[in-house]
Amino acid sequence: MTDHPTTPAAGPTEGIDDAVRAELTSLRESIDNIDAAVVHMLAERFKATQRVGRLKAEHKLPPADPVRERDQIKRLRELAAGAKLDPVFAEKFLNFIIAEVIRHHEAIARA
Amino acid sequence: MTDHPTTPAAGPTEGIDDAVRAELTSLRESIDNIDAAVVHMLAERFKATQRVGRLKAEHKLPPADPVRERDQIKRLRELAAGAKLDPVFAEKFLNFIIAEVIRHHEAIARA
Repeated sequence: MTDHPTTPAAGPTEGIDDAVRAELTSLRESIDNIDAAVVHMLAERFKATQRVGRLKAEHKLPPADPVRERDQIKRLRELAAGAKLDPVFAEKFLNFIIAEVIRHHEAIARA
Repeated sequence: MTDHPTTPAAGPTEGIDDAVRAELTSLRESIDNIDAAVVHMLAERFKATQRVGRLKAEHKLPPADPVRERDQIKRLRELAAGAKLDPVFAEKFLNFIIAEVIRHHEAIARA
């Protein structure tokens, strides 16, 4: 019994040595664990924003809130810098999420 | 002492009643906590992908790996469905992250 398949794997890792392949596999397992955590976090985040969307629709508040978004971006850029994550990427990431949230809020407001 | 400011807050929440404002604030605090967690997760994720990028550059492997990406998308869509997150959004999210990772890998390969 070994940790490695005895037949060569197909694909781009074919021909690289076992130590490199093992390190790549280990890093990919960590990435997959992080992705699973992030997906579950985002599922909770959308549960919260759906509640915000319903509140806004019930009280005729606008779907977008530029002041809130400006504060979120500023805070996230600062958190990113502290975590050694590119603040420009953190801002792009938040804008990507907010675009989806506004799409949800508009759908709730139309419903 | 109350939980609410005695002077009215400016902005889109002005004029809505205190209970609604308190619920909105509570939801936004949860969203901010989730965002902080996600930013720190993504910082760890990029640490792992930077290591993958260096391994790939050292061993002359291509920056992108379509088989790995296809497997990641399939798995993430399944995890998303289980967490009641839109699988289409989960796939868009992973593509957004992977685009950034490939940009990093190309930069490492050029360095």
